[in-house]
Amino acid sequence: MTSVIPAGYERLLLEPNFGHLGTVRPDNSVQVNPMWFEYDGEFIRFTHTSRRAKFRNLQLNPSMSLSVVDPQDPETYLEVRGRLVEAVPDPTGAFYVRLGRRYGNAGQQPPPDSAVRVVLVMSVEKTTHM
Amino acid sequence: MTSVIPAGYERLLLEPNFGHLGTVRPDNSVQVNPMWFEYDGEFIRFTHTSRRAKFRNLQLNPSMSLSVVDPQDPETYLEVRGRLVEAVPDPTGAFYVRLGRRYGNAGQQPPPDSAVRVVLVMSVEKTTHM
Repeated sequence: MTSVIPAGYERLLLEPNFGHLGTVRPDNSVQVNPMWFEYDGEFIRFTHTSRRAKFRNLQLNPSMSLSVVDPQDPETYLEVRGRLVEAVPDPTGAFYVRLGRRYGNAGQQPPPDSAVRVVLVMSVEKTTHM
Repeated sequence: MTSVIPAGYERLLLEPNFGHLGTVRPDNSVQVNPMWFEYDGEFIRFTHTSRRAKFRNLQLNPSMSLSVVDPQDPETYLEVRGRLVEAVPDPTGAFYVRLGRRYGNAGQQPPPDSAVRVVLVMSVEKTTHM
């Protein structure tokens, strides 16, 4: 499989950078928030809950776009476009804990809302970069 | 006039932080890119051109959402939602130069595409923060 991530930019997804995730609201306005994420070379995964706006947005419009800037050189960025391919229940918060540790919280505990936690799985379809 | 920006968060817009701006494409997918911006206490302004995707997106759907993270504390962020209220021609690139200087390029020159530069003026209507 050939990655659509341009050469030299995969590191922006592999390092624990904050991404800014865009989704489309039911009224066709846009929502953007910073998010933790993990990239396995094929999909990008986020922790979220089934009770929040982004989850509802994605039920109506699965489009997702993630913008990541190089913290060492903010003129360098990668935008990844894709869509929600799956929302996997994470009722123990295990994925939340893994992401928390990835982002430097060595003692990360499961969140109070673990019961409704989900892993949002995003496909990687197109990119833009600079 | 009462600002909708929550107390303590205006600084995120006044400091030269990178913002991640979301717009909606004609096919209802979402675009997010890092952008320079300036905030005057009422509107947020960006430099762009009349020939690029974001400009075309905004002609069909004026919704804009800007996400800004505190570089000193990435768990602190502000999302500002609004819409394009005006696109002002900037044919000398003067606003581009002003933004470049704001972001630390003391010798910023006008860009090669000054002839088609525009200032995107975004209203500030709602916010979310953490």
